[in-house]
Amino acid sequence: MSAWVLPDHIADVLPSEARSIEELRRDLLDMARSYGYELVMPPLIEHLESLLTGTGEALDLQTFKLVDQLSGRMLGLRADTTPQVARIDAHLLNRRGVTRLCYCGPVLHTRADRPHSTREPLQLGAEIFGHAGLEADLEILLLALDGLKKAQVPGVSVDLADARIVRSLLDGVALEPKALAPLQTALAHKDASALAALTRDFPTPSRDGLMALVGLYGGAAVLDEAARVLPDTPAIAQALSTLRWLAGHLEGTPVTFDLADLRGYAYYSGARFSVFAPGASDALVRGGRYDEVGAVFGRNRPAAGFSLDLKELAAVAGRRPLRAAVRAPWGEATALRNAIAALRKDGDTVVCVLPGHESEVDEFHCDRELVEVSGQWVVKAI
Amino acid sequence: MSAWVLPDHIADVLPSEARSIEELRRDLLDMARSYGYELVMPPLIEHLESLLTGTGEALDLQTFKLVDQLSGRMLGLRADTTPQVARIDAHLLNRRGVTRLCYCGPVLHTRADRPHSTREPLQLGAEIFGHAGLEADLEILLLALDGLKKAQVPGVSVDLADARIVRSLLDGVALEPKALAPLQTALAHKDASALAALTRDFPTPSRDGLMALVGLYGGAAVLDEAARVLPDTPAIAQALSTLRWLAGHLEGTPVTFDLADLRGYAYYSGARFSVFAPGASDALVRGGRYDEVGAVFGRNRPAAGFSLDLKELAAVAGRRPLRAAVRAPWGEATALRNAIAALRKDGDTVVCVLPGHESEVDEFHCDRELVEVSGQWVVKAI
Repeated sequence: MSAWVLPDHIADVLPSEARSIEELRRDLLDMARSYGYELVMPPLIEHLESLLTGTGEALDLQTFKLVDQLSGRMLGLRADTTPQVARIDAHLLNRRGVTRLCYCGPVLHTRADRPHSTREPLQLGAEIFGHAGLEADLEILLLALDGLKKAQVPGVSVDLADARIVRSLLDGVALEPKALAPLQTALAHKDASALAALTRDFPTPSRDGLMALVGLYGGAAVLDEAARVLPDTPAIAQALSTLRWLAGHLEGTPVTFDLADLRGYAYYSGARFSVFAPGASDALVRGGRYDEVGAVFGRNRPAAGFSLDLKELAAVAGRRPLRAAVRAPWGEATALRNAIAALRKDGDTVVCVLPGHESEVDEFHCDRELVEVSGQWVVKAI
Repeated sequence: MSAWVLPDHIADVLPSEARSIEELRRDLLDMARSYGYELVMPPLIEHLESLLTGTGEALDLQTFKLVDQLSGRMLGLRADTTPQVARIDAHLLNRRGVTRLCYCGPVLHTRADRPHSTREPLQLGAEIFGHAGLEADLEILLLALDGLKKAQVPGVSVDLADARIVRSLLDGVALEPKALAPLQTALAHKDASALAALTRDFPTPSRDGLMALVGLYGGAAVLDEAARVLPDTPAIAQALSTLRWLAGHLEGTPVTFDLADLRGYAYYSGARFSVFAPGASDALVRGGRYDEVGAVFGRNRPAAGFSLDLKELAAVAGRRPLRAAVRAPWGEATALRNAIAALRKDGDTVVCVLPGHESEVDEFHCDRELVEVSGQWVVKAI
């Protein structure tokens, strides 16, 4: 096999896409900063148990494992940054009040999620810790939507769900841990016949509730219907009122509900959201509340957050035009060097044509040229 | 062991350092862009042979290995980005003329280079392909120095070397591959007695030349001395004239020469440079010419480049003050939401105080406050 063949679902990002990703990265981190989210950079590798404790089997299967030569212990390559940021909040910062953190960096997955998806997403996200109220959920969701607006993604819509509904329906059901995954799959695929088989021996209220979830997706009427058909438990009532409140604060963005949605990681504990846009093969952004994530690090703080893959986002974001460059000859004269430095300082790209390459086609698009006119270096259109 | 303990030589980057690294990242990538260097993002993992062919044993030992579940093949976690960028030039872009590329991303090392160094440097670099002349070496070196100037690193100095000198001295010496490493170590440590033992059976001109290298470091006089004591081969003459030319073009920066310097990766083929600054435990930047790197990918193009670790750089770079934020109450009123959005759009950070957290100490330093005065939201100093 040739030395330049990359592994499946692994790719180089070439200049035009890389430029677009870098611009989005800066815009979204600046947006998070403008909301008061401080940047952190957790490491790519950690002890496996730090990365995986309490996060569920899906993340475990997605995580590459390595042996640390220094200690002989197992390390994991992070497949998700959220548990790391919860660790930083819980242990390193250890603040009393509200903490807002954001991050951007690659994660690696052992397998691709979908036929054309990458195993190396560039994950960007934000997390708010220390506030249990819905204001935190809303702030995170609005920050994500503001980011997509800045990225000029057209046709954005929000899908809301709540992890407490399924959890409440399963309350009191004697369920083996390994029986949970097929149940979640049946719910995610809205597969009523599979769900009927899996819940056959459940207590009637649980079975009826889970079966009802399969049909509970769509517009605002879903919440009324859910209140009518689901058991009247405090957790479900709270979930439905949470969803109603959040949807009421998203003026201008189309909102749907999918009460059976359980996709993504196992750590969600309350309201959850997915943001969709035309052209994206899956949700562009996923987020929500996950109050228990920091518990393993010794501090069980309320938490809400979102994450997205900048590579996915770049594929649907509006492209900004590349500013054309200035071409300049190579030379040792101080006046020329100074003219080039001044243009660069003003934000222009100046490409020096090295000796012998004068006749080559410009790889970098240049629309102006630095030329000497009566002893002065001036910029002229090409 | 607690779940929050990180592996040795692996660390979280917390907010104030992360902000500094992010600012440097943008400044240096913008600087590279202003020179016409296009951003690329090679993957973190590749087939092992792509990462390591032709790059030498040192890089192999530094590279974490993984098994790809999809193919069963060995993967490597990149320990250096330069060979990847050469692959992109050789295979993916396949341009005829001069190509300028830059990159920024984490690399991982199985072991730390030095007692306090990280195993996860954040590598930023630039590479120019397709020009064999010294103008390319100089452009890369000036770009690196401009970057350090932008980063406000005080007291920068440049150390020049040339890989062709040792190579020429070893020409015709029957040397087993494994004998090379101790020789390089002895030269790097200027260990004359070890070198004398290692070169005992070498032809006299080689042995004398290698022994002479141990003393050939310092100011410009080193080049005259080298011309006097080293064998008069075309390669050595060319190396010395290269070093003289490069040093002559670095007005304002102190330059020293170290003709025995072979540190770093094995792929260098011509002039090499290291940039030092007070407070840095090792060279801040390493770079030079490595014309053979792309050969394994089917295209043997001239190449020169540099790389640095942004984490190291942040430790010695000038700190810029953090712009203080504006504190705002949480509320649903449209006028308040609009006032907050307008401030954020203008580049201000606005931190909303969520209900119940009014008495907490601000984690984010705020020097202004958004307050309602006769029905208008206005910013007041705190």
